[in-house]
Amino acid sequence: MMRNLTMLMDFYELTMANGYFVKGFKDTKVVFDVFYRSNPDQGGFAICAGLQQVIDYINNMHFTEDDIAYLRGRNMFDEGFLEYLSNFHFKGTIEAVPEGTIVYPNTPLLTVTAPLIDAQLIETMLLLTINHQSLIATKTNRICRAAGNAVMMEFGARRAQGPDAAELGARAAFIGGADATATTSADELFGIPAVGTMAHSWVQFFPSEYEAFQAYAEIYPDSCTLLIDTYDVLDSGIINAIKVAKEVLEPMGKRLKGIRIDSGDLAYLSKKVRKILDAAGCEDCKIVVSNSVDEHLIESLNNQAACIDSYGVGERLITAKSDPVFGGVYKLVAVEENGVFQPRIKISENVEKITNPGKKSLYRIYQNGIGISDLLATYDEEVDFTRPLKVINPNKPWKNLILEHYTAKKLHVTVFQDGVQVYQSPSLQEIRAYVKHQLDHEVWDEEKRFENPHTHYLDFTPAMYQLKQDLLSAHTKDQK
Amino acid sequence: MMRNLTMLMDFYELTMANGYFVKGFKDTKVVFDVFYRSNPDQGGFAICAGLQQVIDYINNMHFTEDDIAYLRGRNMFDEGFLEYLSNFHFKGTIEAVPEGTIVYPNTPLLTVTAPLIDAQLIETMLLLTINHQSLIATKTNRICRAAGNAVMMEFGARRAQGPDAAELGARAAFIGGADATATTSADELFGIPAVGTMAHSWVQFFPSEYEAFQAYAEIYPDSCTLLIDTYDVLDSGIINAIKVAKEVLEPMGKRLKGIRIDSGDLAYLSKKVRKILDAAGCEDCKIVVSNSVDEHLIESLNNQAACIDSYGVGERLITAKSDPVFGGVYKLVAVEENGVFQPRIKISENVEKITNPGKKSLYRIYQNGIGISDLLATYDEEVDFTRPLKVINPNKPWKNLILEHYTAKKLHVTVFQDGVQVYQSPSLQEIRAYVKHQLDHEVWDEEKRFENPHTHYLDFTPAMYQLKQDLLSAHTKDQK
Repeated sequence: MMRNLTMLMDFYELTMANGYFVKGFKDTKVVFDVFYRSNPDQGGFAICAGLQQVIDYINNMHFTEDDIAYLRGRNMFDEGFLEYLSNFHFKGTIEAVPEGTIVYPNTPLLTVTAPLIDAQLIETMLLLTINHQSLIATKTNRICRAAGNAVMMEFGARRAQGPDAAELGARAAFIGGADATATTSADELFGIPAVGTMAHSWVQFFPSEYEAFQAYAEIYPDSCTLLIDTYDVLDSGIINAIKVAKEVLEPMGKRLKGIRIDSGDLAYLSKKVRKILDAAGCEDCKIVVSNSVDEHLIESLNNQAACIDSYGVGERLITAKSDPVFGGVYKLVAVEENGVFQPRIKISENVEKITNPGKKSLYRIYQNGIGISDLLATYDEEVDFTRPLKVINPNKPWKNLILEHYTAKKLHVTVFQDGVQVYQSPSLQEIRAYVKHQLDHEVWDEEKRFENPHTHYLDFTPAMYQLKQDLLSAHTKDQK
Repeated sequence: MMRNLTMLMDFYELTMANGYFVKGFKDTKVVFDVFYRSNPDQGGFAICAGLQQVIDYINNMHFTEDDIAYLRGRNMFDEGFLEYLSNFHFKGTIEAVPEGTIVYPNTPLLTVTAPLIDAQLIETMLLLTINHQSLIATKTNRICRAAGNAVMMEFGARRAQGPDAAELGARAAFIGGADATATTSADELFGIPAVGTMAHSWVQFFPSEYEAFQAYAEIYPDSCTLLIDTYDVLDSGIINAIKVAKEVLEPMGKRLKGIRIDSGDLAYLSKKVRKILDAAGCEDCKIVVSNSVDEHLIESLNNQAACIDSYGVGERLITAKSDPVFGGVYKLVAVEENGVFQPRIKISENVEKITNPGKKSLYRIYQNGIGISDLLATYDEEVDFTRPLKVINPNKPWKNLILEHYTAKKLHVTVFQDGVQVYQSPSLQEIRAYVKHQLDHEVWDEEKRFENPHTHYLDFTPAMYQLKQDLLSAHTKDQK
């Protein structure tokens, strides 16, 4: 059963919607953009995720009788508006980048073209969903990039910010590159491989560590990974693990699959344990570590030549601890007047907070297969990508930029058309593969590094640039 | 309808449970403690929250046919175990501090006494729930302490880590002291006052700021708060707001209730705006601010004598941005052997990670009404609180501590007894009032400050201290 998240909205969406209804604007069409202003962790890009949950939310959006009764009890809404809500379904058009698209600041990740009330009522859930999953997918990918060929497992549920943060966080982590999750329901719901072996409590429960390992090996001879730090890794854990490998597993024709270390000096211990395992003929036994892991610890472990085959990453991934907010915003960019969309702009004292007005098309420009820049065009203009292309970088408008030997790709797909879903998401495996493909083939290495990554270029077509300048001038004139 | 979160568990809980089942330990009783090791943001205490959602989860815990089919498909679980799960309900006893209790590190917030499988299967959801809501309640209270008598509203949904983080986060924020939320469903679900007026989109939609304000004032003359920073606070927003107060509201006999500033220099603008409002006879108009607010920004605004009546706090509250992880853990502390609970200890290289063994009672010791320390006793001992009390501080065991002129309070209540709920939570309003009461009357000011707060004492009874020493010695002997 799908959850009805209709009422998960900022109350101001209802006060505004009621106001638009009362003032007779409910059918006026508007355009809103979802975009963000800077990449988490000062990274070079983000991974856009969560579109499937936006689709589920929109399809299931409706106000129940209880919802209407609650709103009536607030004594501030017009009865006609409440009746309108009780029959409400979303009637708008949504264009968006497909899940897993590598994205950059100040570009429309998602554009809503809809009657005013429809567009306003979906604001919170759209932002919440895209912000959360993009945050976790982007953070996870940082950790995966550091981990390289090592296996990366998401172990975060117990520190997640609520049940959804565990389950949808596991989903976003998988999109970002995690190989597996510890969260069982994430496997059942989304097909993300759920993995797990034992906690310290298993080892403590048995009279001795040896008996705990022995019991586990007897039950799971084909997938025996032993947690060796309950008492002492070197003086006890690894000794008992090897004893069980020799006395329990090898007589059955089985091998010790792995050991896990969850505390202590992971660089030192992993190297020591690797040597002990190899000397005992357990060269194929994998070493898993899982304590306070993130991309920076992994880089440090790499620099120390730690012997680690697999990472279990918990709280620092599932909360994106180093930068736990993805700052997507939802801004009005156009209003229909007499059948034509008139662009709107939001001015701000901070230049970087001035919005890009009007309904827009978003393109990515490639040279030699690499996405070198993104391009904003007005929605209606026909851009001729078969010829050299004049573009304007709004930060350096005096430069005469002519693109040659390039290809261009429109990044948006139409997800809803006048309220009807017209797009089917790829499978989660396909979304994850799409992320990997882009990062392996289409994104500059200079955008992937952690320290001072290259800032992806965002150019405007001359028409788009002129539109923004015209609106800025008009506002300046108004002020005088 | 209540959500079934049964399968939201770390997969290792299932591999362990299956192992215990196969090895014949399913009915062996054990004791687990939930505790945490340090306060978020290096604060002086935490607020324990989430118990109601633990109760809901336990009462609704069951494996569906689909769940069992999924597990069978993993090809690693005993058929007898799967049948056992299909009839599973929680049969254990849970003792816990009531929601809203001020708590300190290394004390059992919640103790589970249950058959081994029952105790193991609830680990993830117990931790997730207590960790998340305690995190947000504790962070919110920091912000409320900085805000003092100003109104503090939670505006975080759009940056929350999933829908639950918005709704349960609003609940925890209310416990921690928030006066209201922007999230409509949090009002419908939990009765937290939901508030909201307008977004920038309202102002942008209308042909002019004045017309936007005018329309809003006409529809909501009794609750008219205007957002004045869409174009320019001083050159436009406050001028139009006062114009609407005079031309629209006052002729109706109404007053402008508030203005909101969501960007710019909040100290400077709030003082300027206050003067302009006062000069225009709008002395009763409240000033609301809402951009990147947290306890540190509020302290800075206080130091600048900013004129602010009300704060809207978003992402920094709802994600606990400054320290987004509450590190509650779940540790085995005793196993029943021949009808007696034998204590278990978890050793670690890090002394502070060594657990406190055995089933314990937790008391708070008061002098002159102030909670001066917490006390751990073994579960079975009768502590005589009518006489001077000898206690041991485990960090300074050589000190001869005798408590006099004190009172003691047992902090745990029994929530489930052998699987049956025997405790009814207070209302959310009561929980919130309980937090406030403790902080106003029972907690030292020195524990409430942000910088280097006093570390609350945690003492042991002599019996408890001896138990831990005995187990440590036994382990040291084992190693030799």
